[in-house]
Amino acid sequence: MPTPSVDPALHETLRQSVADGFAAQLDLTAEFVGCPSQRGAEHAMQDIVFAALRDRGLKMDRFEMDRAALEAHPGAGRISATHSDAPIVVGIHHPREETGHSLFLQGHVDVVPTGPEHMWTHPPYSATIRDGRMYGRGAGDMKSGLVCAIAALDALRRAGWQPAATVYLASVVEEESTGNGAMMAHLRGYRAEAALIPEPTGESLVRANTGVLWFRVELEGVPVHVSHMGTGANAIDAAIRVIGALREVETRWNEEAASDPHFGAMEHPLNLNVGKIEGGEWASSVPARAAVDFRVSILPGWSAEERAAEIERQLSEFAASDTFLANNPPRLTWNGFFTQGYEQPEGTEAEAVLASAHEAAMGYPLGSHAMPAYLDARVHALFEGIPALCYGAKSLASHGFDESVDLASLERTTLAIALFIAGWCGLEPVAD
Amino acid sequence: MPTPSVDPALHETLRQSVADGFAAQLDLTAEFVGCPSQRGAEHAMQDIVFAALRDRGLKMDRFEMDRAALEAHPGAGRISATHSDAPIVVGIHHPREETGHSLFLQGHVDVVPTGPEHMWTHPPYSATIRDGRMYGRGAGDMKSGLVCAIAALDALRRAGWQPAATVYLASVVEEESTGNGAMMAHLRGYRAEAALIPEPTGESLVRANTGVLWFRVELEGVPVHVSHMGTGANAIDAAIRVIGALREVETRWNEEAASDPHFGAMEHPLNLNVGKIEGGEWASSVPARAAVDFRVSILPGWSAEERAAEIERQLSEFAASDTFLANNPPRLTWNGFFTQGYEQPEGTEAEAVLASAHEAAMGYPLGSHAMPAYLDARVHALFEGIPALCYGAKSLASHGFDESVDLASLERTTLAIALFIAGWCGLEPVAD
Repeated sequence: MPTPSVDPALHETLRQSVADGFAAQLDLTAEFVGCPSQRGAEHAMQDIVFAALRDRGLKMDRFEMDRAALEAHPGAGRISATHSDAPIVVGIHHPREETGHSLFLQGHVDVVPTGPEHMWTHPPYSATIRDGRMYGRGAGDMKSGLVCAIAALDALRRAGWQPAATVYLASVVEEESTGNGAMMAHLRGYRAEAALIPEPTGESLVRANTGVLWFRVELEGVPVHVSHMGTGANAIDAAIRVIGALREVETRWNEEAASDPHFGAMEHPLNLNVGKIEGGEWASSVPARAAVDFRVSILPGWSAEERAAEIERQLSEFAASDTFLANNPPRLTWNGFFTQGYEQPEGTEAEAVLASAHEAAMGYPLGSHAMPAYLDARVHALFEGIPALCYGAKSLASHGFDESVDLASLERTTLAIALFIAGWCGLEPVAD
Repeated sequence: MPTPSVDPALHETLRQSVADGFAAQLDLTAEFVGCPSQRGAEHAMQDIVFAALRDRGLKMDRFEMDRAALEAHPGAGRISATHSDAPIVVGIHHPREETGHSLFLQGHVDVVPTGPEHMWTHPPYSATIRDGRMYGRGAGDMKSGLVCAIAALDALRRAGWQPAATVYLASVVEEESTGNGAMMAHLRGYRAEAALIPEPTGESLVRANTGVLWFRVELEGVPVHVSHMGTGANAIDAAIRVIGALREVETRWNEEAASDPHFGAMEHPLNLNVGKIEGGEWASSVPARAAVDFRVSILPGWSAEERAAEIERQLSEFAASDTFLANNPPRLTWNGFFTQGYEQPEGTEAEAVLASAHEAAMGYPLGSHAMPAYLDARVHALFEGIPALCYGAKSLASHGFDESVDLASLERTTLAIALFIAGWCGLEPVAD
């Protein structure tokens, strides 16, 4: 398929329009970053998004998580007590005449916890700009990306154009924990011919993506005075043994992954992360309980159910071999992500349009890479069978301290996305 | 030294008096157990004790923790943010004529946390009596013991007698964390010719006792998205490695302990307990921090300072050898117990008096045992050089679920302590 060419005049017009709007784009990004929308606390943030989209003349749809519908879908994450109840917000553009390809633009507003704030150079929700970067939790992952999609439409409009096809602009939650925000938009019935999610992918297209499973292991035993430690097993020590046993699964899976076309070249693509642990109450009591939160990734094509069963089997076999655990069986709960990975096949028309838009905006060809983490794009790839393009600006330290986005990259990416919309959806003049 | 004999008539009188008062003794014990006096929350409990002692005609002294004085004493525990500010309560009996030996009766009212309440057969502060036992947190360790001392004096008084020497009855806190309650009574200036602490020792005398050190290790690193786990070290994984490194100290110390006269016969007398752990915030973020609370015991005669230095050395040497820890040095804080152990030498007059009282009350000779845990008796043994008798009833599951005290044993022990007071302090008739 030939790479669609970008009209040089349109390119220059949009470059200027993106530049003209970039200060306002950064203001909106800073407003988004300033909102501490951790899991369950995205309500205010979604209201800000709702207002921003409505102010731009989009028709608005706001809807709740339908837990029953989610629980009935095999690709939904498992709903735990900490699951968000914030609504999903979709802004809808309909052209006067539907001549181009429809598009689902999507971003998530949930952010992961900050960690100890003293480890940040600037407060994590301050959206401080310094040396060409904006710093803050969510500055990269992915509030700047969501605003980038909004700003791309703004840039078109500022130049007198709007998409000549239906465009949805969806702001979701639960991307960092279950993927149920994107799934809920799917369950709401939205369908388009392609999806674009401006995650901070470093100006590169995500070609393949792992699935992710979340689970918690809880251990409970009989505590005693530490002077009788032999008679009362230590639940924290048992948790450490469980972690060791589960690392054997991780090792096996990475051996399997060595021959994967997308992830085989990575040193250790499938990580079992011990993300959280807590146990015990008192230094001088043998702890009665411990709980460990795990996250593990699986290759595209692997069944979440089968791999989950393998983890359960490993845990129960290990427990049977362990004196304490045999008498106090660990309890495993799937409490979040329960997803397969996806591959974004080469050769789609949507990718070709993105490639030309990218090259025009960036001055170098579009590359692609495999990403060993969860991305909401999988909902569109796996359950809608449409091109699911995950593509966005350069960022640093997602989930880390001093998370930041590169502002020059952000501006270029905004132009690339505006050009992609122009090429994919086509354009029509803004109505009088 | 000949065992002092117990007068059979006095024995029978006191046996009956203890029996007559036992229902009231259990009521008071239940009231004490019903008060959830965990660390820092002993204020109401100490007011109950104050009222109980004042109602019995004792002169009362109530005083605060003097943190400066504690910090200046080498035997005090390290004061952390969770240190109790509850007062120490001492009731004082002066005889009309000081003819016998003075005595320091002491108990602690702080209790350790309950653990998950659903693991208890009865609610932990319900003081439920069933099948000859009282169940509850602190029922054994050691509210029944403190009440036992009060009840022993009550039994004497009910029979028309009171001690013919000064008797202090001290109710302290911080026994489960620093030993600073007992230390504060010492710093207040109280001195006697012997101390008796009715911990639930199983009707046996504690001959030797370990010292205990409390410390916390905190780890902090740079979290990143789990997809880049290699670049951001996992603080929980690092904590697990630290635990492993410190277990090497535990192994060395237990090898040393094999030749100890008191503890050598025990299989593993010196326990390094991982009592509490917490780390991380999010399953899909590589955790930035973890903290582990440890408790370790040391043999009598070992220097707390030297053994603490050995732990610090082990930690820093291990950290230097570990990629993550070398760049993110762990922080070790001594945050509680910092005590030497003690031995209670055989052959004291006080022990002889206790032995005869015990044999009269129990019908079998007094035994002794080494206890691999902390006891407040060490303050009197180490810093006052007096016989420090730790002796009390039979209990089960101290620090555990369904902690309980054997009520028949408690009644016998009350008689033994009343007889001990009679033998050690001498008696005089209660004043008109």
